[in-house]
Order: sequence, then C-alpha cells, then structure tokens
Amino acid sequence: MEFFPEVNRIEFEGKRSTNPLAFKFYNPDEAFEDTTMKDYLRFSVAFWHTFNGTGQDMFGAPSFFRPWDNAKNDLDKALMKIDALVEFCEKLGIEYFCFHDRDIAPEGKTLRETNAILDRLVNYLKERMKESGLKLLWGTANLFSHPRYAHGAATSCSADVFAYAAAQVKKALEITKELGGEGYVFWGGREGYSTLLNTDMELELDNLARFLRMAVDYAKEIGFKGQFLIEPKPMEPTKHQYDYDVAASMAFLRKYGLEGHFKFNIEVNHATLAGHTFNHELRYARINDMLGSIDANQGDLFLGWDTDQFPTDLYVTTLGMYEIIKKGGIKPGGLNFDAKIRRESLDITDLFTAHIAGMDAFALGLKAAKELISSEFENVVAERYLSFKTGIGKEIIEGNTDLRSLERHVLDMENIALPSGRQEYLETLINRAILLAVND
Amino acid sequence: MEFFPEVNRIEFEGKRSTNPLAFKFYNPDEAFEDTTMKDYLRFSVAFWHTFNGTGQDMFGAPSFFRPWDNAKNDLDKALMKIDALVEFCEKLGIEYFCFHDRDIAPEGKTLRETNAILDRLVNYLKERMKESGLKLLWGTANLFSHPRYAHGAATSCSADVFAYAAAQVKKALEITKELGGEGYVFWGGREGYSTLLNTDMELELDNLARFLRMAVDYAKEIGFKGQFLIEPKPMEPTKHQYDYDVAASMAFLRKYGLEGHFKFNIEVNHATLAGHTFNHELRYARINDMLGSIDANQGDLFLGWDTDQFPTDLYVTTLGMYEIIKKGGIKPGGLNFDAKIRRESLDITDLFTAHIAGMDAFALGLKAAKELISSEFENVVAERYLSFKTGIGKEIIEGNTDLRSLERHVLDMENIALPSGRQEYLETLINRAILLAVND
Amino acid sequence: MEFFPEVNRIEFEGKRSTNPLAFKFYNPDEAFEDTTMKDYLRFSVAFWHTFNGTGQDMFGAPSFFRPWDNAKNDLDKALMKIDALVEFCEKLGIEYFCFHDRDIAPEGKTLRETNAILDRLVNYLKERMKESGLKLLWGTANLFSHPRYAHGAATSCSADVFAYAAAQVKKALEITKELGGEGYVFWGGREGYSTLLNTDMELELDNLARFLRMAVDYAKEIGFKGQFLIEPKPMEPTKHQYDYDVAASMAFLRKYGLEGHFKFNIEVNHATLAGHTFNHELRYARINDMLGSIDANQGDLFLGWDTDQFPTDLYVTTLGMYEIIKKGGIKPGGLNFDAKIRRESLDITDLFTAHIAGMDAFALGLKAAKELISSEFENVVAERYLSFKTGIGKEIIEGNTDLRSLERHVLDMENIALPSGRQEYLETLINRAILLAVND
Amino acid sequence: MEFFPEVNRIEFEGKRSTNPLAFKFYNPDEAFEDTTMKDYLRFSVAFWHTFNGTGQDMFGAPSFFRPWDNAKNDLDKALMKIDALVEFCEKLGIEYFCFHDRDIAPEGKTLRETNAILDRLVNYLKERMKESGLKLLWGTANLFSHPRYAHGAATSCSADVFAYAAAQVKKALEITKELGGEGYVFWGGREGYSTLLNTDMELELDNLARFLRMAVDYAKEIGFKGQFLIEPKPMEPTKHQYDYDVAASMAFLRKYGLEGHFKFNIEVNHATLAGHTFNHELRYARINDMLGSIDANQGDLFLGWDTDQFPTDLYVTTLGMYEIIKKGGIKPGGLNFDAKIRRESLDITDLFTAHIAGMDAFALGLKAAKELISSEFENVVAERYLSFKTGIGKEIIEGNTDLRSLERHVLDMENIALPSGRQEYLETLINRAILLAVND
Repeated sequence: MEFFPEVNRIEFEGKRSTNPLAFKFYNPDEAFEDTTMKDYLRFSVAFWHTFNGTGQDMFGAPSFFRPWDNAKNDLDKALMKIDALVEFCEKLGIEYFCFHDRDIAPEGKTLRETNAILDRLVNYLKERMKESGLKLLWGTANLFSHPRYAHGAATSCSADVFAYAAAQVKKALEITKELGGEGYVFWGGREGYSTLLNTDMELELDNLARFLRMAVDYAKEIGFKGQFLIEPKPMEPTKHQYDYDVAASMAFLRKYGLEGHFKFNIEVNHATLAGHTFNHELRYARINDMLGSIDANQGDLFLGWDTDQFPTDLYVTTLGMYEIIKKGGIKPGGLNFDAKIRRESLDITDLFTAHIAGMDAFALGLKAAKELISSEFENVVAERYLSFKTGIGKEIIEGNTDLRSLERHVLDMENIALPSGRQEYLETLINRAILLAVND
Repeated sequence: MEFFPEVNRIEFEGKRSTNPLAFKFYNPDEAFEDTTMKDYLRFSVAFWHTFNGTGQDMFGAPSFFRPWDNAKNDLDKALMKIDALVEFCEKLGIEYFCFHDRDIAPEGKTLRETNAILDRLVNYLKERMKESGLKLLWGTANLFSHPRYAHGAATSCSADVFAYAAAQVKKALEITKELGGEGYVFWGGREGYSTLLNTDMELELDNLARFLRMAVDYAKEIGFKGQFLIEPKPMEPTKHQYDYDVAASMAFLRKYGLEGHFKFNIEVNHATLAGHTFNHELRYARINDMLGSIDANQGDLFLGWDTDQFPTDLYVTTLGMYEIIKKGGIKPGGLNFDAKIRRESLDITDLFTAHIAGMDAFALGLKAAKELISSEFENVVAERYLSFKTGIGKEIIEGNTDLRSLERHVLDMENIALPSGRQEYLETLINRAILLAVND
Repeated sequence: MEFFPEVNRIEFEGKRSTNPLAFKFYNPDEAFEDTTMKDYLRFSVAFWHTFNGTGQDMFGAPSFFRPWDNAKNDLDKALMKIDALVEFCEKLGIEYFCFHDRDIAPEGKTLRETNAILDRLVNYLKERMKESGLKLLWGTANLFSHPRYAHGAATSCSADVFAYAAAQVKKALEITKELGGEGYVFWGGREGYSTLLNTDMELELDNLARFLRMAVDYAKEIGFKGQFLIEPKPMEPTKHQYDYDVAASMAFLRKYGLEGHFKFNIEVNHATLAGHTFNHELRYARINDMLGSIDANQGDLFLGWDTDQFPTDLYVTTLGMYEIIKKGGIKPGGLNFDAKIRRESLDITDLFTAHIAGMDAFALGLKAAKELISSEFENVVAERYLSFKTGIGKEIIEGNTDLRSLERHVLDMENIALPSGRQEYLETLINRAILLAVND
Repeated sequence: MEFFPEVNRIEFEGKRSTNPLAFKFYNPDEAFEDTTMKDYLRFSVAFWHTFNGTGQDMFGAPSFFRPWDNAKNDLDKALMKIDALVEFCEKLGIEYFCFHDRDIAPEGKTLRETNAILDRLVNYLKERMKESGLKLLWGTANLFSHPRYAHGAATSCSADVFAYAAAQVKKALEITKELGGEGYVFWGGREGYSTLLNTDMELELDNLARFLRMAVDYAKEIGFKGQFLIEPKPMEPTKHQYDYDVAASMAFLRKYGLEGHFKFNIEVNHATLAGHTFNHELRYARINDMLGSIDANQGDLFLGWDTDQFPTDLYVTTLGMYEIIKKGGIKPGGLNFDAKIRRESLDITDLFTAHIAGMDAFALGLKAAKELISSEFENVVAERYLSFKTGIGKEIIEGNTDLRSLERHVLDMENIALPSGRQEYLETLINRAILLAVND
C-alpha cells in the first residue's frame, strides 16, 4: 500500500516557489567542493520520531493517527512501518535512516523471544533496504524506555539489569552489522542519576566503562567496523546524565583509556541544554579529532527540555556546516533528523514539510558556510593571532620559553597593543554569508 | 589604628542568643572526629572582597566607604588594609586568608616597578602574619582585571600578553612561597572566549597547557610545595570559559598529561552557574582524587551571574561537608569565603555578620553531615547496589564477563525486580540530620 | 479490599524516631495560634498523581503497578481507585483531596455518555466521602489531555473545541458543587501557544475572558459558592502559557473586569519555572488580596521542566507559611500535594513516605515561620521604612506632596544616610527560626 | 575638533561590498509603504553606551580610551562628548539620540549645583542639536547609579531618597521638554528588591504609583506632551524588578489607574531575560495598544545577564519589524541602540561598525517582514481561526452563548476535526521571507 498518497516524489524546484512541498535550496546533485551536496549532507530519517511518534506529551494523549495504526496486529504494524520508511525516504530523496532495536520490533516475554521477533523484522528490513537502496547510518539499543531501566542500564544499581543491557547491545551490534550500519550510537539516557543522594557515582562510572569496553571487544570479535559514537546529553530523563557534554565525555573516555574507540554524535538540542552552542560542541570535538556524526534538530532556548524541533535556524546550520567543512565532511557520519513534528502538526504532510524545512536549512547553511570561508572571515581571525607566528610568540609555540625568559621579555615593557576582537563585524560577516548564499 | 572599633573579638556564645555578632554553632575547639571543628573548617578570608570590595556593580557606583579610603596615598592605603585584615581575622577567629597579587599592591609603570612595590607590601604582610599567626591558604595572580587581559592571559591572542601573564605568575609563585602559602590557584577568568567567531580554540587550549606546564616546572625549580589548584567557572566575564566545570577541566588536564599536578578549588556559585549542584562537583572531584579546596559562597539560582553571596543555605553546607568528611577533611585546602556582602549591606558590621553567617552555616553543615553519616542514610544507598556484591554482579566488577556471558545470564529471565530509589525518604533523612544536629 | 496492607494508620510519633512511616513534626491537634495545626495545614491529596500516576515519562514506559491495575474493567478500576483514595487519606490523616473530572472516570463516545459515566462515579465518591469524612478541596476539568485540546481549550482555534471545553466546565462545576468542593481551579495548561507564528493572541485572550465570564455566570446560576482559582504556569506543555505568573494573570483579570471573581492557586514549581520564588508569588498575591490556595510541591532549580517533586525544602515551606500566617491562614484554600513520587520510587510505601515528607516539611515550616514572626525579623524590616512614618515620608504617603515640594525638600541637602539592607543577617534569622522550631 | 577622523560620512553603498563601514541594506530614502525606510526605522544613539562606555565589566577595568578622555576637566569632557555625539550621528545618518540626565553632566555637591551644571550643558546641547538637526527621541533620569539609590528610588526605604528621585525627575522632564524630546522613559533599575526578606513590597509598589502619578501631573502642569514610557526588565541590578515584563507592568498600571498615561519601551535583551521572546513582548503590548518604543539590542540566550549586544540576529529584527508594521510604525517612538560594543572591540571604528551592523539588521528585518506579510503567512494563521467567523464560533464572539447553549452544541458530537498548527512550515516561510528580502 502507499502510505503517503498525498505526496509525490518531492521535486527540487526552482527558487521563489512557495509550494510547501518543494525544496528551495537543497539540490542533491549540485557540485560542492570535490563532491556533491548530497554527499556533504548525508541526511538520515530517525525511525522513532517519524514512524513511532504519536504527538503524546507529558500532559496529553497521542494526537497523530497514522495508516499503520489500523494494522491488524503488532507484527503487521511493524512491517507496515518499514514499508512506510522506504516510501518516505524515496519521496524525500533521503538515503539513510537510524533506529533503535525496539523501534522496529515489539518485545516478547523473554529476551530470547524478543530477539526472534527482531530477527524476523531485520530480515524484512534488510530486504527492503536492498531493493530500495536505503542505507543504515547507525543503529543503537533502546536502554531507557522499559521500566527495567528505571535506574539506568550500564549504570543501574541492579547487576541483572546491567547484564540485560549488555545482552541487548550484543544483539543490536549484530543487527547493525547485518544491516551494514556505518556507526553505532551510545546515548545513555538513563546513565546518570535522579538524585545524587542515592547514587554511588564512582561505581556507576566504573561500570559504564566496563560496559563500553565489553562492547568494543565484542565489535572487534564479530568484525563490526562501524564507528562507535557517544551522544552526550546533560539531563532529561535523568537529573544529571554522565555524558553531560563533549568535554565531560572526553574526561570519562580518557580516564578509562577508551578515547581511541569512540567519536561523538552531537545533537543540537543536547548541546544547548548543556549551556553550549552547537558550534561550540562541534569545534571542541573537531579539535580533538572526535567529531563523528550529527543529530540535526534544534531546541527552544526559552525552554528547559529537549523539544527536538526540526532545524530551521540558519545561524545554527551555517555555523554547524562551517565546522563540518573544516573537518572535511561528516562521513562516515551524517545528519540524522532526531526531530519530531510538533504535537499540533496534525497533517501527515507535516512530516514531509518538516524534513524539507530541515534539509533546506542545512543546504543553505552549507552554502553560507562556504561563502563565509571564502570571505575575509578567516583572515580576520588569523590576524588576531599573528603574534604567535614570529618572535616570542613563535618561541612559546615551539616550547623554547620558561617563566624566567618570559619575565625577561616583559619586565620593562610599558604598553602592549592589542588587536580589536571585532565581534560586531564578524557577526555582520555571518549575515552577509547567509544572504550571499541565496544568490549562489 | 583599630579599624573595626564597633566590634570586639567575637564570642562563641551559647545557643538561643540573637546577638547578630555571636556564633550559634561554630565552636572552634569542639571535638570533631579525631580533631577539632576548627581543623575541619579551615576558614579563610578573601582579601579582594572584604578589603577591596566597594559595593560597585554594573549599574552603580561604590556604596561602601571604609576607614582606609581616607589614606593619604596608595601605599598607605595598602598598608592599612593589611592591618585591617589582621584585625578582622583576629576578631573572627579566622586563621587563613587568600589573595591575588594585585589585591595588596598597586601596579607601577612597568612590571619591574610593580614587583618592587609588591615586594615591599609582601614584606609587611609577612611580618604581620608572623606576629599574629595568620596564615596564607593560597595565593594567585590577577590575570583578568587589567585591560591587557581583555582577550585572556594564557589564552590571549597576543604573545606579549601571554609572556606578561607568565611573568606575573612567576612572581606570584615566589611571593606565595615566601608567605608560606599552602596552595596556589589558577582561575582563568578570561581564559575562554567572548565569541567563538574570532577564536582559535585549538591554539588557545594548547597555549593554556604550555602555560600551566611552565608554572609546574617553575614551582619545582624554586621548591614551592603548595598544591596547584584549578578553579572552574563556566562563564563571566567570558561567554565561555575553558575550565567550564570539573569535568571539562579534567578532560583538559588528562589530554595534556597535567592531571598529576593539579587538584580543584571548587566554588559553590561556579558549580551552579555550570548547571551542577555544589555536591555534584565535589563528588566528581572526590572520586577522581582531585578535590583540593573550596570557595565557600552561594549564588542565587534565579540569577544567571556570579552573585558571590555569603553561604547560608544549610542544604548546601550539609551536602558539601558530607563530601569533605568522606574525603577525610579538606586539608591542605580550606573553606575560603569568596563572597561579598550585598551592595546594600552598608554597615561595616555587616562584614562581620556575613562571615559569621557563613561560618555558622558550615559549622552546622558539618554537624549535620556527621549526623547523616551515622544515620541509616548510607545503608540505604549501599543496599541499592547489593547485587554487585555477589553472583553476576561480582563477576562484572571483577572483569570476568563479556557480552556473551551476560546474554546467557538473562536470555530466559522473565522479570527483574528493582529496589526503590527512595528519593523522598532520603530527602527526609537530610532534613532530620540538619535538625538533629541542632541539639548535638 | 485493603489496598495498602503494608501500612497501618500512620502514627504521629515522638521526635527522633527514624521510622520512615512516622511523622516527626506534624501533629494535627497541636495548638497553633487560635486553632490547631491541622486547621492551618489543610493538606489535600491530588487524585491524578497518587492514583493515576504510572511513573511514565517522555523517555519511558510506566514503572508502577498498583492493585487496581488488576481490575477486570475500566469502571471497576475507577471504583477501586476511589476506595484507595479513602483508605490512603484515612491512613495519613489527610482530610481533603482534589481531582479533575477525567481523573475519576473514563470518557465515553460522546460527552453525553461521558457525563453519564461520570455521574455514576461521582455518586459513589460522594457516598464514600460521606461515610469517611473526606472532603473536596477543589475540583477542576481536564482541558489538556485529550487530543481535541491540542490547540488549547478556551483559546483553541476551533470554536467546537471552545464549546466542548465550556460544556466540560459546566459539568465539572456541577459535580464540584455536588461534592461540596470549597473551590474550583482553572489551570490553562494549553491556553497559550506552541509558536507565536500561528497565533492570534488578541482573539485568544478575548476568548479566554469570554470563557471565564460564562463560568462565573453559570456558577452564580447554580449557586456554587466555592472560590474560583486561577493557577498560573509559564510554560509546559505550551511554549508560553497566558497565565504565566500571578502578575500576568492579574493584568488579564483586571483588563476584563474579572478580578473580583478569582483568586490564585499558587504552585511552587510553577512559580520557579516563571523565574520567581514561591514566596514572591505568594507575597504578590497576598498584597493584592488574591491569595487563594497552594499547590504544595517543589521543582529542581537545575531543571527546566515541571518535576512536581514532593516538598521537602524547609526554606520554601518556612517562607511560604510565613506568607500564609500573615494572611491569616489559607482557608478556604489548602495545601494540595500536586506532587508525584519519582519514577524510581517503586514501592507502594513510597507514596506514604512522600506525603509524610511533605506534611512534615510544611509542619516544621509553619513552626519556623511562627518563630520568625516572634523574632526580631519583622522589626528589622519595619526599621528600614521608618522614614515613611514621619515628616516628608508621611507627607508622601498621605498624598500631600508633588514634584515641586519634593524638590524643595532636597535641593540643598548634602548627604542622605541610608540604613543597611542586612540581607546576610536576615538570612541568619531564617536559619535560626528553622532550628529553634525543632525544639518547640 | 574631529573625533573620528578615521571615518568619513558613511556611504550607503551597493550590495556585495565588503567594506565594513558601508551599509548593505539600509537605504534611508528607499520608499517603504507610504513613507521612507528612514521614517520607519527611527534609529537613535544611546548617549551612555556610546560616549560614556569604557569597556569596564565586573572583573575588569576600562579597556577603551577615547579622545575626550584627554579633556582638561570634567566640564570640557562633557562638552567634547556632545560634539562627538553630533559628529557620530551625522557620519552615520542617525537623526535621534537618547540620554539620562547624568550622562551629559557631572553631579555637584547639592542638587541645586547639579542642576546648574546640567543647565549649562543642556544649553550647549540644544544649540548643537539646532544647528545639526539632531533630535531627542527620549530623555530620562538616572535613578540607579548613585549610591543614594542603593535601595531604589521611588521604592527606596528612605523618604529622602524618594524625594530626591522626584526632584531629579522634575528636572529631567524640564530638560527633555526643553530639548524637544518625543518621549520620556522610566526604567526602574533598582525599583525592586535584592532580597524579599527585607522588603515591604506593598508599600514600595504604592510608592511607585505615587511617584509616577506625580510625574504625570507635573508633565501636564508644564505642558510636556511627550509619551511616557515604562521600560520593563526582570532583574539586574536587583534580584527582582517590579516592572518585570510588559504583563507585570500592565497589572501595576491597571491597579493604580495609570494605564492611560504610559506605553512601553521594550528592550530585546530585557524581554529575553524575562523568559520571553522580543516579539512576544511586542505583540502583547501591541494588542493592548501599549507599544511605544524599542531598545534595539540583543542578548546572549546562554548568558543570564544583560549583555546589551548590538542587534544582528535577523530573526529578531524580522519578527520585531513585523509587529511594528502591524502597528503602523513605531512613531513617536524609535529604535534606540541601547547596546554596547564588546569590551574587546577596541578600535574606535568598532563603534561605527556596530551601529551599522544594527541598522542593517533592522533594515533587512523590515524588508523581510514586508515580504512575510505579502506571502501566504497571514492567511495560514487566519485559516486556523476560521471557525470563529460563522456558526457557533460567531455566536461565541458576539456574546450570544452560555455554558448551557455550548453544552447543547457538543453533547452528541463524536469527533472534532482540528487544523494543523503547521509550525515547521511557518518557520520555513520566515526563512524564505528573509532570503527573498535580499533581492528586493
């Protein structure tokens, strides 16, 4: 059956069209650097939000009703959603998706039963992927929804739960490999605490490291070559999550000697909840060679929870794509729309509109970032640091100084001239880059 | 001259007195664990707030006028403030103080001149310390007030500024050693950025590491044995400070192999600005063996800037002292009142009242923490983790499991029983501990 | 059947007991002012959290399983929960409860059917209330959970939804009257917007006023004498709720001439989400004679959503009870525990422990507030304003001045002496009041 | 003398120029609606930031040095700054400025002396305005910087301070009238509290009303016809300011019957500190016919204090100008740049660059808002509310319904169809409007 008969394959229309179901800026085959726009913007659909999302919130019941809600049973519904995924991605021209194990298959009474159900759906998914060309950006295990994970998974106070989570990751690694996934994500949604009062933080962090180490070993054993990714988030559902931000996660990985096995999957809304801009988190990961993949959404800076909105803020996409270009592209990661349409976006076409909004915003962001790089922007920055290219600055960089020699350098100096920070001007350049990109 | 004739040496009066200039709970010689309360609560006066504070804020001129404001010149004023420090600490029974180089001595036209002035005041300070028994908890260099540090010090874009800052640290280390300082603090107030747009984060972080390495080397060279301390703060005056929180600073120290040379000076208000509770930061530092010293103040959680209020919240002091007891005391660190009286606290006696408020709040916090430890509190926590003491839990801890063996353990399990988190009950125990401490 | 056989009627035990199911401070019959503690602390159980709460959150499935979950059908379950309510309140010694229409009865296919189901359960509830002495503090209508309310109720963009909400309020007023409710609450959970972009704010606010006016008229018509209460909240589930805080709601009520018909139901966690302390909101309502009732819970100031925790913070309860004493008691309002146990508080006894924690915290808060009032606290405040009791200050208050006369008063004045704000000392008095209350 | 010889009169250059001192979008004489762009964008320079700003912050000394800092005395310096203002505005093509009494003249020993100094500078300013065509958008009195205002001005606990503030407002009204000011602003920077513990909120609010009433009366007496404006801000320097946001200020004005005499001066950064978007505050004021003027700046949503940055965010300017167009223009108000260049923006040309950044951002915002209005945007919104145009919706609006009639309407209804909120699509339309505006 066709799930979205209202929507044909989306056209990449010319500019100025106001058809809501048309792209203004995204043009997959447009040349970009040595490659194409599509290759730079490896968009991915998030199975959970788009096919399992109901519009439910903490104060309200589901508001969406989808064709697959009429399925005659759970298995049938699961199969229908896989078909819907394929149709959806084809119509939008998106080549990747991401999923949690439990997104695609219901649980059975035991893990053995659950795995059997999962295998059946993985087989079907694999078949549909093969025939449609759809690819898996990354897989993951849902270690937070079931009540057994109320106290965490790898950091649960229950050893049985730790074991259960480990077993679930084992299977999730296997199916991710089976489906050709290019990465595997660890989002520790409940790896933290609701109150520090009842928490043995030291034991929990040690256990988290033990858990990740076992996952690393098992991936090696089965020959899974995908990139392991940590997805930081500071809070929610917990009061405090251990992978608070990129820096906290780096401190953890370095402590346990795990930094060589992981990179980061950075989510816009998680960055902002942690008090950082998205580009801060990208930059920090990039200069540590740890930038792996992106969860492309946005939050509302006036709200203190994870709103997971579709990304439309051109400042966020421009500065985000700037970091990605500087890194040389996001491959083998991608831009996964970990975003949900608002509870009030009641039409099924809103699912398409929202993804187009996000794709267009990143497409323009990509072009604006390119414009920025070819403007005087980077020279302004480089000039600020010119003093480290010669003289005492060069000596400092080269490690030829100590406190004594530096004291000698300044002891009788009367004034030090400083360059201006030029923040207002640099903000102007960002606006210009965005606006010039329109006409490219 | 006597600077505070309104105030006699403060008595440690009995309970129920409402004299604002008397202690209710602090009793320096009261036995506590193997030692005395005074030894546990190594209070310190912050030179900058208490003797240089003017009540000025971003919207208002100074509101305080102090006896030393009538001094006939800058040097005289500097000498008077040292005398005031000694008198103040004697009257309050406080044995330590902390200072920045520029707190005690004005700058000259060159660093050479500045250092000469500084030497003169250090000599006087040393003399007064010797005769009064006052001790230096830690020293530091002010690398943020002078406009030369507008772009940072160790992370400035100017190599000359980097050198100047290095020279200033050199001298500050020398005088801290001279005065017998038990520690040396690095608060990188402007080591961060106002806008990421103009910032080479990678270069700046590398330079920060170079800077700290040189300081470590020089301390070794001159035989300074005090503890080096990093004081994290997330923002203000910068938009983003590199030593954002303990975790970010740990990530940094570990990257550059510096973690063995530093511990943390954790400030309550800095923790909360970073989105963490004070006890979270203490715990995180403690389990990494990095808890060094405390800046004892409090913020207003409704305000987004560093209010540096005197600490009066008994929850903060109780949970803080809990961590300190578990660590076995804060020595060689202390509890430095990095706190300023409100701009509207216009009477000179408010300086005393405020310090007493803080000392009393920590004294009661200490007693409440002790009460908590002797209650069932820790057993409730330990019971939650019981499953890691035997069976599969013990195997996990001992490193005898892998994903395969853990999967075997759970594959046919039907239900996992979880203990309750009991947060509401544990909060009750905190209240009880505070209240029982009153009658101890 | 007995639903909580683990728990006997809770004893009001003596101090120092560590039995978690015993009160330390709450003693219902203790004399307080002219009356008893129970009469001051008119506690109420929130039907929705305590009997419908499942532990579900945005990232996780229900974690609680209750005896009534085994009911053979929905009606039976509804009846069982009413029985559980009665048993629960009896065991805790709580005399009031609050409820939404939909808490106690499931919806039918039409409103007519729904009302019929509701009538049946109201009859049963009335009977059980009569025999047990349980009373209704206030009733309300749930105008936010059903998807029909996705765009709001009184502020929906759909006229049919407006009408449906009106009809629901009509019935809710009728049953609240039937059950002898002492108040009726309007919490406009979705009366606001998700995005201002799609919102006609003017029309929506006018409609909200029309809606409330009709409710006022209908209450008069049927002779419902209970107090109408607005419950402000700034956001969640909406991005922005019109009843943002007490001040915003006052602006609204005054604009539409409705202020004589309403007072406020102030919730701790809603106050803090709006950037205000609880006592600020209470004070502001009190001086406008608009303080009606309290939703007694607390939030986590580090989290940006409505955590609805049980109240345990003694500062919040002390300063809250201070305002209530100054108002002369909260009657005909009460202290409704709009609080939910944590998702991890898995034992059914946690329901009891949590309520005891809250009752004890308010009981001690009441005693501490009384202690505060009998301390020098209020004199310190009164002294600050002394200058308005005589001379030019008195003239100002009495309306005898204008800009000309005030200019004459100061034109040649050289200095104005100001009293100290004494914040640090006043904070000390709060601590002392709490601690002295323990021994009362 | 010429103060800014580096800068010639700024040209309104064509697009694509990267000269930082040229406009890209602002074109004062461009036709806009019935008038010109200049008339829509009544820009104003803030005397205090631009001519008194030093770059000082809470952690650092002044970083800027200006030509007038070499003046031989205070009076000379004051005269030079007036000349600098005239030159600055001419070079930028800005026609308005705003000032506080104390910005332009130092205080004397008594108010009488102060007023004499002020008169002299007002005379000079008037003369320079006349010859240059520069106009005064609004004047105000600085009632927050001097320590006498530590406890507030109209809400001070000191009656003498109340009187002093009144006298200062009297004079400020006189000079604003003298200079032809089109408005007069009340920003109650310290009209609030540092701690509620020491505050008689009721007395303070009553006094604030008395104060404003006297100002209204005096303006009438002297024939000052300018618009009175309240400028809300939630906090800083106080913990809580009474004019928290537009809604709180409306509640206050309505209580005391003052709403007919005031409108609002809405500042972007003040709106965001209060938890509202700028356009929310504009909309709320607009639908209450209370939108008077704008303080055009922006904050940093990651920081909790008033950063007063120059406005460059095109979303803020577009949605802001949308409200202003809907109101029919901001006249007699304007867009006052209450913004300061960053402490690190050390070059005097940064003063120009920053103003150009702001003017361009608002110019493009104006064009984008116009584009938005001519797009389908408003139809999408109108369609949502269609149900209120006929049938039951029309009846509701016309006041012909009550709870009974509305119940009849829905009692047997089975489903209510809702329109989609279309948030994602509307966000797309904003992006399109901004981008289309570029090519206009």
